[in-house]
Amino acid sequence: MKILVIGATGTIGKEIYNALKKNHEVYRAHRNSDTYPVDITNKNSIKSLFEKLPKLDAVINAAGTASWKSLSDLKEEDYYLGIKSKLMGQVNLVHIAKDYLKENGSITLTTGILAEHYEPNAVALSLVNGAIHSFVHAASNELNRGIRLNTVAPGAIAGDFPKDQKFAGYLPVEIEDVVKIYEHILTTKNTGQILKIY
Amino acid sequence: MKILVIGATGTIGKEIYNALKKNHEVYRAHRNSDTYPVDITNKNSIKSLFEKLPKLDAVINAAGTASWKSLSDLKEEDYYLGIKSKLMGQVNLVHIAKDYLKENGSITLTTGILAEHYEPNAVALSLVNGAIHSFVHAASNELNRGIRLNTVAPGAIAGDFPKDQKFAGYLPVEIEDVVKIYEHILTTKNTGQILKIY
Repeated sequence: MKILVIGATGTIGKEIYNALKKNHEVYRAHRNSDTYPVDITNKNSIKSLFEKLPKLDAVINAAGTASWKSLSDLKEEDYYLGIKSKLMGQVNLVHIAKDYLKENGSITLTTGILAEHYEPNAVALSLVNGAIHSFVHAASNELNRGIRLNTVAPGAIAGDFPKDQKFAGYLPVEIEDVVKIYEHILTTKNTGQILKIY
Repeated sequence: MKILVIGATGTIGKEIYNALKKNHEVYRAHRNSDTYPVDITNKNSIKSLFEKLPKLDAVINAAGTASWKSLSDLKEEDYYLGIKSKLMGQVNLVHIAKDYLKENGSITLTTGILAEHYEPNAVALSLVNGAIHSFVHAASNELNRGIRLNTVAPGAIAGDFPKDQKFAGYLPVEIEDVVKIYEHILTTKNTGQILKIY
């Protein structure tokens, strides 16, 4: 398969790339890439990336950010950081990828445990993750050409987070197990799924 | 109780007002009000409204909009219509209300069935409703002074929608039953609840 991984230098994206490259032709995109630079907050930047990579079988996004602040510290513009990046960045990616991917292509986004479990100072992340869950569920019904849309929603990643400490009520998960979900979804016919691992 | 109803001329807001005014001191705010005008897409407009109404026991929001369009017709700016209105309008309302309401005051938002059930051409509404559900769940944990935050998530309203036709997989609900939920939540100690009726 020809697969594009966006955010390929992050905690999760890096490991997705390392795992997939064993069996697939994988393209690494990230903000500072020389070959495949992309800024997911910018629609034109996403479009330029897909222009360079026609006929992909799949795209996996592991990029996107949002504000870590307490409710009392969150200003309107803090919410918009996540709305423009992790939320609308991924929504725009879907809108562009649906036209560029090959028939029956797969789009996999990244959300997380915060959509449904509480962690202090993560209100803006919860909001963004919840928005994408409902978006994936709804939008998957309106994609044409057999394009599939799913999201992986992991808890905190062990290593990145202390192994014996709980995050949003759950112990961290192993990155290998998270990566297996991104890999597995490529070979299924599933769409509209929120693949939770925590 | 002193209760502010925002969006008090809409299908739901109007009936909330009519029901509550029997037993409470209710203030009606809406975009075209002479006394209590408010534009929920504008933070300063919300703030001005609360400045006029100190020491409220509760605020109920039934205002907010989003784009009804198919996925293929949705442009980035269409998503932002809902993000600025029904999503960030309600988020900003919470941020302002939490400082103005009386101790143990109640904030009730309005979302809907589209957060979790699919209806054609409603992707942008699903996104917004899902975002608010996760926001309510998370933010309710960080409110001080006993302020409570909940949302009512109704299906389509009978009358407003044909009685024998399904919306997002469900038959419409009676407005009287929906209004009872808004009324009931005022007298509980519940917070962080997504009160679904469909």
